[in-house]
Amino acid sequence: MAGLYDEILENHRRKIEEALPSYLPPADGGARQNTVYEAMRYACMDGGKRLRPVLVMEFCRLCGGSPARALPFACAVEMIHAYSLVHDDLPCMDDSPLRRGKPSVHAAFGEDMALLAGDGLLTRAFEVMLAAENREGLPAEGVLSAAFALADAAGAGGMVGGQVIDLQSEGKAVDLPTLEALQLGKTAALITAACEMGCRIGDGSPQQLEAACRFGRELGLCFQIVDDLLDVTSTPEMLGKPVGGDQTNEKATYVSLLGTEKAAALAAERTRGAVEALAAFGEEASSLRALAQALLRRTS
Amino acid sequence: MAGLYDEILENHRRKIEEALPSYLPPADGGARQNTVYEAMRYACMDGGKRLRPVLVMEFCRLCGGSPARALPFACAVEMIHAYSLVHDDLPCMDDSPLRRGKPSVHAAFGEDMALLAGDGLLTRAFEVMLAAENREGLPAEGVLSAAFALADAAGAGGMVGGQVIDLQSEGKAVDLPTLEALQLGKTAALITAACEMGCRIGDGSPQQLEAACRFGRELGLCFQIVDDLLDVTSTPEMLGKPVGGDQTNEKATYVSLLGTEKAAALAAERTRGAVEALAAFGEEASSLRALAQALLRRTS
Repeated sequence: MAGLYDEILENHRRKIEEALPSYLPPADGGARQNTVYEAMRYACMDGGKRLRPVLVMEFCRLCGGSPARALPFACAVEMIHAYSLVHDDLPCMDDSPLRRGKPSVHAAFGEDMALLAGDGLLTRAFEVMLAAENREGLPAEGVLSAAFALADAAGAGGMVGGQVIDLQSEGKAVDLPTLEALQLGKTAALITAACEMGCRIGDGSPQQLEAACRFGRELGLCFQIVDDLLDVTSTPEMLGKPVGGDQTNEKATYVSLLGTEKAAALAAERTRGAVEALAAFGEEASSLRALAQALLRRTS
Repeated sequence: MAGLYDEILENHRRKIEEALPSYLPPADGGARQNTVYEAMRYACMDGGKRLRPVLVMEFCRLCGGSPARALPFACAVEMIHAYSLVHDDLPCMDDSPLRRGKPSVHAAFGEDMALLAGDGLLTRAFEVMLAAENREGLPAEGVLSAAFALADAAGAGGMVGGQVIDLQSEGKAVDLPTLEALQLGKTAALITAACEMGCRIGDGSPQQLEAACRFGRELGLCFQIVDDLLDVTSTPEMLGKPVGGDQTNEKATYVSLLGTEKAAALAAERTRGAVEALAAFGEEASSLRALAQALLRRTS
C-alpha cells in the first residue's frame, strides 16, 4: 500500500480520515442506542486505504470543483463500502471472524448489532449527502445526481447484485462473462460511482463524466484481477493475510479462468484503458495516472 | 382492517398497489441476480395496509400537490418499511419463520438472500426518489428534503435506533421514557417521515409541515399502544395471529407498564392530539380524521 498515493491524493486521504467521524453519529455516548453508533464507528475506522472517497475528491478537483465541498459525498461512499464489508462478514454470508486482523463487527458487537450497524451505515450515507448543511451552495442537480449514482451502484443492480451472483456461483463452473458481471457489481460499480460523484459535485462536462466513469470501470476491474493474482503469487508476509484461499475454496477467479499470464496481461490492459481515459483531464490527472500504475504493481 | 380507509385513502392505496411493482427491479427474469429481485418483490407484495405511503399521498394532496407526483416517494417509504420487516424476521433478530401467515423472506429464499433483499430494498428506496424520471418537474428542494426526511427517520437515530433499544431492553425492566424512545424510533419515526414527505412534495407551508409531523408522531405512538392492547384484549381469530405473546416474552409494553385502562386512555389522548393537529388542514382533512379514529378502534 506504500506509494499508492502522491501528495495530492494523500492530502485527500487525510481530509477524509479527519472528516469521517464528524459525519457519523455523535461519539458522546449520550444516546440510548449508543452501541450501534459505536459499531458504526468501529466499522468505518479500520485503516483502509479510502480509495473510493479519494476518487470522489480528486475527480471533483479535476473538474474544477472544490474538493472540500465533496467531503460529505466522499464519506458517504466510504460508509457504503464499510456497510458492505460488515454484512459480507456476517455468519450467513462469508462468516469471517476477522477483518484486517481485527475482530469483524459481528465478532465484536454481536450478529444483531452488526446487521443493524450495516443498515445504519447504508442509511447514514444518504442522510449525509442530503442534509441541508452538507449541500449548501452546491447546485441541487449535482447533489441529486451524485446521490442517485451512489444508490444505483450500491443496489441490487450493482453491488448487492454482484454479491448475489457471487453466492450463486459458489462451487459452480463460472464463465468469464459471469465473472465479469460479478466483479462489475461487487467491486467496479462503487468505484465507478465514486468517480462519477466527484464529477457531479465538481460540475464536470459530459465528456469529463464519461471519461471518469470509464476510468472507474477499468480501475475497478483491474483491482479485482490483481487481487486474484496476489492470491496465487504473493506470500502471507507480503499480503498480510493467508494466500491460496481462492483455490482452497474452489472459487472462480480471473486466474483460475485465464491462467496467471493471461490474467496479468488483462490487468495491464485494463490499466492502459484507465490511463487512456484520463486524457480527457490532461496534465492535471497525473496523480490518478500514478495511482492506476501503483494499483497494478501493488503487492498487498 | 375493514373500514380503515374512506374512498379518498382507498384510492391512494389502489394507486400504490399498482405503482409499487413498477418501482421494483424488472420482473422479466432476465438478470443474473434475478433471485434477489424476486425476494425484493416478495417482501413488498404482502398485502399490508400501506399506511405509510397512503399518508405520503394524502398529505401531498392536502398541501395542494398532485398525489400522483408523490407516488415514487410513497413507494420508497413502503420499501423501507418492507426492508425493516425482512431484517427483523432474520434468525439473528426475531427469528420469525412467518410474516402475515406466509413464509418470511429468509424462510422462502434463504438467510443470505433475505439479508441482501433487505439491503436492496433500502437502497432502492433512494434510487426511486432520486432518479431523474421520477422527480421531473418537482422542485429540487422538495425532493432533497423529502429524501432526507426518510433517511433521517430510517437510520440509527430513528428506526434502526429503535430496534437497538428494543434489543437492549429484552428481559429487562424498562421505564416509560425508554419505551417511548423505543416506539418513537421503531414505529413513529417512519410514520412521521411519511407525513413530512407528503408536505415536502406538495410544497406545504411551515405550519402545514409542523401539523403533519405532529399528526404522524401522535398516530405512530397511538398505533403501538393499540397493538399492545390488542395483544391482551383480542382473540387469535380476530387478530389473525396468536395473542398474549408480549406477556409470554416478558416484553415491556404500554399495557405492562400502565395497565389496560391507562394504556387505553393514553391511546385515546394520542388520537385526540392527532385529530387536533389536523385542524391546520381544515375540512379537507376529514379522511385522516376518520383514519385516526379507525386506527384507535381497530380490532386487528
